[in-house]
Amino acid sequence: MSKTMKAAVFVEPGRIEIREKTIPDVGPNDALMKITTTTICGTDVHILKGEYPVASGLTVGHEPVGIIEKLGSAVTGYREGQRVIAGAICPNFNSYAAQDGYPSQDGSYLMHSGQCGCHGYAATAGWRFGNKIDGAQAEYLLVPDAQANLAPIPDGLDDDQVLMCPDIMSTGFKGAENANIRIGDTVAIFAQGPIGLCATAGARLLGATTVIGVDGNAHRLEMARTWGADVVLNINECDVVDEIMKLTQGKGVDSAIEALGSQATFESALRVLKPGGTLSSLGVYSSDLKIPLGAFAAGLGDHRINTALCPGGKERMRRLMNVIQSNRLDLSAMVTHRFDLENIVEAYDLFSHQRDNVLKVSVKPG
Amino acid sequence: MSKTMKAAVFVEPGRIEIREKTIPDVGPNDALMKITTTTICGTDVHILKGEYPVASGLTVGHEPVGIIEKLGSAVTGYREGQRVIAGAICPNFNSYAAQDGYPSQDGSYLMHSGQCGCHGYAATAGWRFGNKIDGAQAEYLLVPDAQANLAPIPDGLDDDQVLMCPDIMSTGFKGAENANIRIGDTVAIFAQGPIGLCATAGARLLGATTVIGVDGNAHRLEMARTWGADVVLNINECDVVDEIMKLTQGKGVDSAIEALGSQATFESALRVLKPGGTLSSLGVYSSDLKIPLGAFAAGLGDHRINTALCPGGKERMRRLMNVIQSNRLDLSAMVTHRFDLENIVEAYDLFSHQRDNVLKVSVKPG
Amino acid sequence: MSKTMKAAVFVEPGRIEIREKTIPDVGPNDALMKITTTTICGTDVHILKGEYPVASGLTVGHEPVGIIEKLGSAVTGYREGQRVIAGAICPNFNSYAAQDGYPSQDGSYLMHSGQCGCHGYAATAGWRFGNKIDGAQAEYLLVPDAQANLAPIPDGLDDDQVLMCPDIMSTGFKGAENANIRIGDTVAIFAQGPIGLCATAGARLLGATTVIGVDGNAHRLEMARTWGADVVLNINECDVVDEIMKLTQGKGVDSAIEALGSQATFESALRVLKPGGTLSSLGVYSSDLKIPLGAFAAGLGDHRINTALCPGGKERMRRLMNVIQSNRLDLSAMVTHRFDLENIVEAYDLFSHQRDNVLKVSVKPG
Amino acid sequence: MSKTMKAAVFVEPGRIEIREKTIPDVGPNDALMKITTTTICGTDVHILKGEYPVASGLTVGHEPVGIIEKLGSAVTGYREGQRVIAGAICPNFNSYAAQDGYPSQDGSYLMHSGQCGCHGYAATAGWRFGNKIDGAQAEYLLVPDAQANLAPIPDGLDDDQVLMCPDIMSTGFKGAENANIRIGDTVAIFAQGPIGLCATAGARLLGATTVIGVDGNAHRLEMARTWGADVVLNINECDVVDEIMKLTQGKGVDSAIEALGSQATFESALRVLKPGGTLSSLGVYSSDLKIPLGAFAAGLGDHRINTALCPGGKERMRRLMNVIQSNRLDLSAMVTHRFDLENIVEAYDLFSHQRDNVLKVSVKPG
Repeated sequence: MSKTMKAAVFVEPGRIEIREKTIPDVGPNDALMKITTTTICGTDVHILKGEYPVASGLTVGHEPVGIIEKLGSAVTGYREGQRVIAGAICPNFNSYAAQDGYPSQDGSYLMHSGQCGCHGYAATAGWRFGNKIDGAQAEYLLVPDAQANLAPIPDGLDDDQVLMCPDIMSTGFKGAENANIRIGDTVAIFAQGPIGLCATAGARLLGATTVIGVDGNAHRLEMARTWGADVVLNINECDVVDEIMKLTQGKGVDSAIEALGSQATFESALRVLKPGGTLSSLGVYSSDLKIPLGAFAAGLGDHRINTALCPGGKERMRRLMNVIQSNRLDLSAMVTHRFDLENIVEAYDLFSHQRDNVLKVSVKPG
Repeated sequence: MSKTMKAAVFVEPGRIEIREKTIPDVGPNDALMKITTTTICGTDVHILKGEYPVASGLTVGHEPVGIIEKLGSAVTGYREGQRVIAGAICPNFNSYAAQDGYPSQDGSYLMHSGQCGCHGYAATAGWRFGNKIDGAQAEYLLVPDAQANLAPIPDGLDDDQVLMCPDIMSTGFKGAENANIRIGDTVAIFAQGPIGLCATAGARLLGATTVIGVDGNAHRLEMARTWGADVVLNINECDVVDEIMKLTQGKGVDSAIEALGSQATFESALRVLKPGGTLSSLGVYSSDLKIPLGAFAAGLGDHRINTALCPGGKERMRRLMNVIQSNRLDLSAMVTHRFDLENIVEAYDLFSHQRDNVLKVSVKPG
Repeated sequence: MSKTMKAAVFVEPGRIEIREKTIPDVGPNDALMKITTTTICGTDVHILKGEYPVASGLTVGHEPVGIIEKLGSAVTGYREGQRVIAGAICPNFNSYAAQDGYPSQDGSYLMHSGQCGCHGYAATAGWRFGNKIDGAQAEYLLVPDAQANLAPIPDGLDDDQVLMCPDIMSTGFKGAENANIRIGDTVAIFAQGPIGLCATAGARLLGATTVIGVDGNAHRLEMARTWGADVVLNINECDVVDEIMKLTQGKGVDSAIEALGSQATFESALRVLKPGGTLSSLGVYSSDLKIPLGAFAAGLGDHRINTALCPGGKERMRRLMNVIQSNRLDLSAMVTHRFDLENIVEAYDLFSHQRDNVLKVSVKPG
Repeated sequence: MSKTMKAAVFVEPGRIEIREKTIPDVGPNDALMKITTTTICGTDVHILKGEYPVASGLTVGHEPVGIIEKLGSAVTGYREGQRVIAGAICPNFNSYAAQDGYPSQDGSYLMHSGQCGCHGYAATAGWRFGNKIDGAQAEYLLVPDAQANLAPIPDGLDDDQVLMCPDIMSTGFKGAENANIRIGDTVAIFAQGPIGLCATAGARLLGATTVIGVDGNAHRLEMARTWGADVVLNINECDVVDEIMKLTQGKGVDSAIEALGSQATFESALRVLKPGGTLSSLGVYSSDLKIPLGAFAAGLGDHRINTALCPGGKERMRRLMNVIQSNRLDLSAMVTHRFDLENIVEAYDLFSHQRDNVLKVSVKPG
């Protein structure tokens, strides 16, 4: 094994490029993973644009599929050569936050004190890959807390089939899980990008019987139908709030899922929510949000607003891969384009401009 | 029994006065209650000022303590002459909303459609007394859905001891119940008016071990200590957000309860909330709310925001009166001033100006 | 309209027969329903055999599909001639029990005091039709608390399509809902009669990804596959406990649903349950149960055992019919045989002997 | 530091004695704790009697209070010399079971397969101290997964004040937490040994307003009053089931907590349980249990039965110590007798025979 590897690193705003880096050492609780497939996330695009700050020289990416190259001395129950994934969020399950029920928030998150306007939106404490430590768009990835985070891939599933598990499917499904869905519910999902599409599939999988997909892109609405929407609404063709209130005979939806991170989608989600309903918010917002008084019933509507960071850990990954293995959902069509790691700059260009009906790209080291 | 009664009616903004009204007829599912004690709520003051619109001529008030004067033909299990209370919110438990788990929201609430800016904040569908139908500041009160809403007063409890149950205690406790409190939690309650004080007492009753009361009024903070706060913070004497972050070693509180209905308290509640924490909102807001991006962790903080309308029904009232009967909490000191119904205008004046350390007034018909 | 009607009445153990009875009067909160289709339940067979005692002369049956013939004076929002169903359990939603969260248990259930061996298993307080009051196997049915219990049938659904909603589907789905199912779970359902089949469908609808149907009847196992089982196990062909432990790599299932009411199924359900797992029990037992020490982990397994009585009410019925209307599940094949009310004795004979692969029969008055 | 230490080891049934043992080496994820105080548990008495099998030569005990002597190389955020406790159950929070929500069950528990009568009741997978590895009744204790399990003792709390946290308080409180207690509930706790007393305190702390303590020992009932019971019932002086049904006007209790591990207490708990109520079981049973048909409402009572193994981990311990630090509960009177480690045989004798009103003993190495 060579001592160096290729990695996509953030250099400066507007510039991510392939660099040669040293393959990291493996501590007692770590594992080194040889990446076979990874992908680019919307968050990576924010990093590229400099909208989300990371250190110059950091390897980006947080969606790893690969093979165990080397196990730390204290990691047991795995074998080198085993095919695994790791979640985009790699929690330290020994932390207070994890034991308290919030593994994605590791307790080092102290940014929202009174004076912290300056800290911007740099939360996401449990998110380490491509944020605090080197990430997955590389030939090798060092996985911390490997005992908790390495998830073996079941026999019979190829890389593409599990590529959505680390982030897209885990986040989208969490949006559905956070929506308090019960059998017979009506659920509207605002925005049908990869995460919104997974939230749509998740809502259906959890027993919602009227699943409404909302977007402005006809192609994505078509995919929404494929993955679970009973009804799709194009924001360019109707007043979505009106339409949903009509569909529900003026009652509103039981749950609304926000999957974009904008005032418009958040506000629409609230406007169609029944008293007693739940707004599950998935988006990463980039400015203050406004809650309209009427839609919020002046605070008297028995409403719930739940936010989430993508869940990680090997048990989460095991469950998501099980959904795929049991043929409940096939997300392989989510991979619309394929690139070699060497050409990742090109991949970023396609993905960030949402050209050619791209949903997700696969990226493979040499 | 006379055919008319005295009642405090809303005439026009700025004017509530005692009028003579006809005692209502009793339908098969109704009960007529002779009021022995009632009180004035902050919402009644909003009605008085014209900030919350009700029909001219409506009897105001929604916190009834009294005696069953007459039972409807289909109401069973009660006897005339029995001492009872009824909740401020008198749900129709046969409604879809109630069966769905939201009895305070009766399903006729259709105000937050896309165009409904104009409807203002007139939600609160299950709130009927002094809002949609004649209320409790009168000699007699017609209770709809009496089978569900009449709650017998246990022997040994006098009117003052149960006067907070219909609204103040039910709402305040719901704020604590909605806060997902677990043993060992730190909970901050923003505003220590009557409802905030009950939320403070409720948080302690549910196992919070660090209860922080926040207000700007020293007298109310003193009462907060009496009813359960371990720590009190005066917004005029410190930066409350800073202070709470220090008290929690920078971690933030497990739950924050908003009990006023203002941007400042809502925002502070969010700023001190830990990732994974719950903001339980009780206040009736009067304008759009802003969610600051940083405090909201850009939507990635695993936060929950829960709102509530006061729960009603005879089982709720039974439980609240049981808290008092079992000496867990004595709220009689909440009644700081006493008035006859005839002098209710004077009572409104004292209460609305929060003079003389008033918390709540009792109002007794002749 | 005639003043009398045909009804199937329990006469004495072993004898249910068609009698002429007076059509009941309609009180203010009642509705009279003209039955268009009903069915026979396993419980009715217990009544027939005298194993479950009801008063001689009582009309049996609790699964009504029909048309509103007459509405009580206090019932609003419906119209005569409207097609409706009512749940097998017709709760009084004004009761303490209903407001406390248990509408199927109306609070008059006082049978399990220390001395009550003699009361036998006559629980089921909210179950009125064909138990405490005249039931649905008749030309007309008086529905109490009609405002809460009449559920309009959506356009486009015929009688057969909704015939399982009042009891079979509501009970079976409750078994799945009570099983704490999460996405990716493995769930085993013990017994695949009509209720077990619905529990199987419900488990899949709620996101279980390995659904295991267990029975001794090959035909029913075949139906189990149709309605959602990934794996079926025939108790006559394998050691089911062993097989399930192998399927789960020795871990046990996340949830086990008991759908028969016998020691054998209850015990097997517990034996395959993982530590931390949930046993959802649906069966009506007829003798004391034994909990084996080992399977119960001596009380240290973080196990949950949940029992349930069929949920009722118009909101429940609305949700179940919505599942069917949205094409999530088609239970019409559950009706394997058809009879006129006049021939109900013959229907009982077929159904009680489980001849001819019968699952459920439909029974139609003239 | 010496290379050997004194430790209480299980030799054979009936014989625990002080032996000299080697002080263990510290691996990267371990910590070595110098014990300052420990205690004897009822389970230790089962071990002594040979009723619960452990390896001959094993150091017993699982309730450690002490000082960090040495930290493993990968353990951070602690300092040597720091006062700490560790839970009786030391979970591996990296396990599938922990990530799935059941840290006390580590997934290696595979004993309840169909054939496993022979395995007896040896569940309790997360319980390592004095069960699978050397325990706390010694001068030094090796703590595995130290990062997750070492809990710093807050300033101002002495050893006796936190001695109940590792097991007695964690288990007792879990009994209350598992009982689904809501404000206004009536809760009966069957058996008032140390764990039952903590369950009683926990039920009150969570908002139960009628707490009923049941036992046959007058002294323990007196202590029950001190720690939270509103009513105490002596099984030798009344028919407890009758008495509780009278106290609840025939309705039954909302929750019943079993804290002994016998058929009698389990059965009584079920007999007083309301429909819709929860039986929270804490006891370690030693034989099969019987569920009486009537008390179980034939499976139709919407009952829940929840079992639990003592929760562990540093966050749990932090919360429990916070309860004490905030003066919600003072359990120091639970320590009724004091012994040196050298005299532990004498301590076992007193404790196992429940002489002299013993509740718990403290045991201190040299």
